[in-house]
Amino acid sequence: MSSRLVRGVSVLGSTGSIGTTALRVLARHADRFRVVGLTSNANTVLLAEQAAATRAPFVALASNGGDTAEGWHVGPEALVDAARLPDADIVLNAVVGAAGLDATLAALQAGKRVALANKETLVLGGELVMAAARTGRGEIVPVDSEHSAILQCLSGRPDSQVRRIILTASGGPFRGWTRDQLERATLADALRHPTWQMGRKITVDSATLANKALEVIEAHYLFGLPYDAIDVVVHPQSIVHSLVEFIDGSVLAQVGVPSMDLPVLYSLTHPDRIAEPGISSFDPVAASPLTFERVRMTEFPALRLGIEAGRSGGAAAAVFNAANEQAVALFLNGSLSFVDIPRAIESALERLGGLPGGSREALLAADTAARHHVAGLFAC
Amino acid sequence: MSSRLVRGVSVLGSTGSIGTTALRVLARHADRFRVVGLTSNANTVLLAEQAAATRAPFVALASNGGDTAEGWHVGPEALVDAARLPDADIVLNAVVGAAGLDATLAALQAGKRVALANKETLVLGGELVMAAARTGRGEIVPVDSEHSAILQCLSGRPDSQVRRIILTASGGPFRGWTRDQLERATLADALRHPTWQMGRKITVDSATLANKALEVIEAHYLFGLPYDAIDVVVHPQSIVHSLVEFIDGSVLAQVGVPSMDLPVLYSLTHPDRIAEPGISSFDPVAASPLTFERVRMTEFPALRLGIEAGRSGGAAAAVFNAANEQAVALFLNGSLSFVDIPRAIESALERLGGLPGGSREALLAADTAARHHVAGLFAC
Repeated sequence: MSSRLVRGVSVLGSTGSIGTTALRVLARHADRFRVVGLTSNANTVLLAEQAAATRAPFVALASNGGDTAEGWHVGPEALVDAARLPDADIVLNAVVGAAGLDATLAALQAGKRVALANKETLVLGGELVMAAARTGRGEIVPVDSEHSAILQCLSGRPDSQVRRIILTASGGPFRGWTRDQLERATLADALRHPTWQMGRKITVDSATLANKALEVIEAHYLFGLPYDAIDVVVHPQSIVHSLVEFIDGSVLAQVGVPSMDLPVLYSLTHPDRIAEPGISSFDPVAASPLTFERVRMTEFPALRLGIEAGRSGGAAAAVFNAANEQAVALFLNGSLSFVDIPRAIESALERLGGLPGGSREALLAADTAARHHVAGLFAC
Repeated sequence: MSSRLVRGVSVLGSTGSIGTTALRVLARHADRFRVVGLTSNANTVLLAEQAAATRAPFVALASNGGDTAEGWHVGPEALVDAARLPDADIVLNAVVGAAGLDATLAALQAGKRVALANKETLVLGGELVMAAARTGRGEIVPVDSEHSAILQCLSGRPDSQVRRIILTASGGPFRGWTRDQLERATLADALRHPTWQMGRKITVDSATLANKALEVIEAHYLFGLPYDAIDVVVHPQSIVHSLVEFIDGSVLAQVGVPSMDLPVLYSLTHPDRIAEPGISSFDPVAASPLTFERVRMTEFPALRLGIEAGRSGGAAAAVFNAANEQAVALFLNGSLSFVDIPRAIESALERLGGLPGGSREALLAADTAARHHVAGLFAC
């Protein structure tokens, strides 16, 4: 028996891209972590495999319906239950979309670490989530590669020593495309991400740069920085994961080949690090050259819309997020074109951007209204 | 009156490249630092100007001879006295060459912080210097841009979390040169450094890569790392100042436009940072592209010779350093060619590399023997 403390981890969204990465990382470090909970939205086959492999004592299917095995928990409440399992020291929240909010709040109120890959919950309910972390003495550690990079560069230094942060964006598959080309962009084009293998929704968000807007809002809450202190630069190689500029002008960057293994592992071990032979040494010569470009704000209006929504407060960020989710869902099923996505977001913000925030109910109402608004725009 | 603690700084080698940078940085932060000591080897005119501008209470000319003003101290002992001034909290040692060793030892034994730009003293007497820091409760904070970068990336993390460090090298003016071209390289060619404005000796060391060998040895002592954990990569733009790879595979880099203002300032404020509007914001787009190349060890043998000397222990690193200093002096006065520099070093190491280290006297004897050996090689 090792005397080392083994920490319990509940993995929400275990069958998605981040979830499967997390289980692979956790399996490599079984001497330090054990899986105490697993949830999937609807992938019963993979969930059953994972349940058998990890012997997780709590398994839940978050959607109602579908085949479930004996002993599985079912429904949205089961997702929240998985977030406050007594044996869970860490809740890795890799649920896609706004559905992750309640689980994040529950885990933080129970004083747990939330390893947060579900960026939408901070965008939707940033104030609520940070308040829950304070009152419940929980903590949020980001899993996004960009925010993990920022956290690593900060190394516990106080906010007062930060001049600004620079989030990098790959630019997505449409980086060099003209506005005319973007008008004709297909779903297949949008899903062809140049550097990262990810789920479909986040891949489309990378193509519109809506993803980077979500990350700017997330960074605002996570690091307590004003929007003026958060910049975005396009970096096509996705090697420099983000940068922090300190008040003395010094800049630290976290770099490495694109892989979610490291940010997932770091979200579990922060502020410590543990040996991970599975992540090979970085070769700067192989990664060379590294290039940086300005964001083309006109061609990719979702970034500007999202940052403006973040700045304006209230429920605007929730409206941005929900309108984007709805528009991407419609794009994924072929109901609208790529350039319709930011148009739908802009329409929703014009109509609903002034809605109040302040409570979970108000934010969810704004979320629902934005989804209906976007769905209505493209109804026949 | 500010209640903030004002720290006294003694600047050794104040009239050189780093020294003048340090006085400029200190003048911008006069609310936090005051200059309590100044020394120059022989530049009496500039030293007099600096003495008047800073009103430093202790001024010394380290070389015997030359015009001195009233109240100035004179001679090598005065350099050591400047290093242990009671009012000096920090001793910035920017003396060129082995002459800085005794001052470093004196300051560390007196419990001071040594902001070390004189890398030769660690190369010559690394064991002695680290021992003096331990017994005197002094500390060494590097001023070299590469080591400052490493220190910043480490952010106080324990050595046990470091997999390796990667020192960047600009490659110097002869980066792409063939061996035939190097045979014909002139002094003027060697002094044409592509990215850094520095003194003549260090500029030639950058051209031979002897400078990078000195930095590898320095890093070995400063960060307590084995030579196998110290890599060198050529990075012509000098934007990425160095990198640290941690045991989990994560890599942090410190980046910025080439300027010694930041490493000098950070050596004074570490581990804190203070606002420095004089260092403008970093623009990754303007710095793009960043490229990395492998070191051409065959064409630039001084790097290999220096690292081997460091590994072999004893007085070998002292012999490397002294042979290099002597060879560079002869190159600067036109007595030998560029490719003769590594040949002279190799000859000295073959003859004297097995000399014992262990004491200041043994190391200085090896230093003297190496200088005589190199001078004798090229005597008519």
